[in-house]
Amino acid sequence: MNTIFTHRSIRNFTEQKVEEEKLTRILEAGVRASTTGNMQVYSIVVTTDSECREALNACHFNQPATKAPVMMTFCADFNRFNKWCEQRKAAPGYDNFHAFVVAAIDALLASQNVSLEAENQGLGICYLGTTTYTADRIIDILKLPQGVVPITTVVMGYPSEMPELTDRLPLEAVVHREVYNDYTPADIDRIYAERDTQPLTLKLLKENGKETLAQVFTDNRYTKKDFVAISNLLLDVLKKQGFMNNEM
Amino acid sequence: MNTIFTHRSIRNFTEQKVEEEKLTRILEAGVRASTTGNMQVYSIVVTTDSECREALNACHFNQPATKAPVMMTFCADFNRFNKWCEQRKAAPGYDNFHAFVVAAIDALLASQNVSLEAENQGLGICYLGTTTYTADRIIDILKLPQGVVPITTVVMGYPSEMPELTDRLPLEAVVHREVYNDYTPADIDRIYAERDTQPLTLKLLKENGKETLAQVFTDNRYTKKDFVAISNLLLDVLKKQGFMNNEM
Repeated sequence: MNTIFTHRSIRNFTEQKVEEEKLTRILEAGVRASTTGNMQVYSIVVTTDSECREALNACHFNQPATKAPVMMTFCADFNRFNKWCEQRKAAPGYDNFHAFVVAAIDALLASQNVSLEAENQGLGICYLGTTTYTADRIIDILKLPQGVVPITTVVMGYPSEMPELTDRLPLEAVVHREVYNDYTPADIDRIYAERDTQPLTLKLLKENGKETLAQVFTDNRYTKKDFVAISNLLLDVLKKQGFMNNEM
Repeated sequence: MNTIFTHRSIRNFTEQKVEEEKLTRILEAGVRASTTGNMQVYSIVVTTDSECREALNACHFNQPATKAPVMMTFCADFNRFNKWCEQRKAAPGYDNFHAFVVAAIDALLASQNVSLEAENQGLGICYLGTTTYTADRIIDILKLPQGVVPITTVVMGYPSEMPELTDRLPLEAVVHREVYNDYTPADIDRIYAERDTQPLTLKLLKENGKETLAQVFTDNRYTKKDFVAISNLLLDVLKKQGFMNNEM
């Protein structure tokens, strides 16, 4: 009954549409998330129309999960707040990097509430990490104005699969007590022992022709070349959307 | 029974300690959150010791909520993953801005799971937005190595207060259908009508000697001067912690 502990990413969905009342309830869950100073500096763009979706799905490389009936793009958004300030004789100073960070935090906490409530309502969800890869194109497609940057995407629908829970590193891998206790080589070996040798890993090594799982990440999935290119794309997007004016 | 809809930030706590079994359950909830490519590139530093806490609480300006018995600092963390790569004959390319964004997203989704499970367990929580204000000092105090940046903090404990739910803007304020529908002046007036005139706002206007609520934000709470200073501090922190090598 505790949705948090039964979460798995769903990438295959039935044709069934998500009812409007459910969508409203799910979005209301998002709005209850903590937000800096109650500013609510985020927006959620809900896209279901098949024409709108076609271009958006391509931004996510048409991965199977994009076939979900509902796609929600979570955006850091100071546009609304800035407009309110300007209409209320106040001069907003939120065109800088910290404003982006504050707004991105708001957007991400809301996204997790939305995801959990969607699961509470019997839907399956999947985060699309590809949002940052093509943020510039998503901005064009969704017509995001200055002060708005897409940060993550969640697709949802009725699941047509129920995969196993994904393995996680032991708790000690991510938790530190009092202060950070840096990892010794022995710690790393112990923490990753299970993941390094499990059947899924052996399958990936074979598929990718690699010696270690880490190489699958560095050489195939998340290469330095791609990460550097996306870093520069993102910094450029932040500049264009008005979040890099870091001088008084 | 649905924790998402009953969340309020708790800033006053009883003396009662949080049981270790509860802490473990809460942290396990964090670990179940979605994470990019199952990399789990985040860390949670759990600080309860009063000596450790003194310096940390000062980083959060000793705001009342820092009296909570448990403080969790959520960090974007590629350190562990990089060490694993290096021990597994793989060359990590995660010392760039996109790596920070990916890791920050991981950390924030985990933080919201942790917060909700803490509330499921009868605790109260409060996010401390001050984490980014003093990220440099928090890095020193928590001994965060290269590849690790604190992104948010959640305090928790048994509540000694149960404030009203905080008001939120109407759902239409944050939700867009299909694409972004930018706000007209009339939209802004309608969306903010209730917040602009509610008793809490009138109290804040009087306390702050301001004409509009927006001015309380721009002139007192979140000034451009502070935001610009924090922006530069954060970009400097990202550089020092090894997340700004954006060239091949």
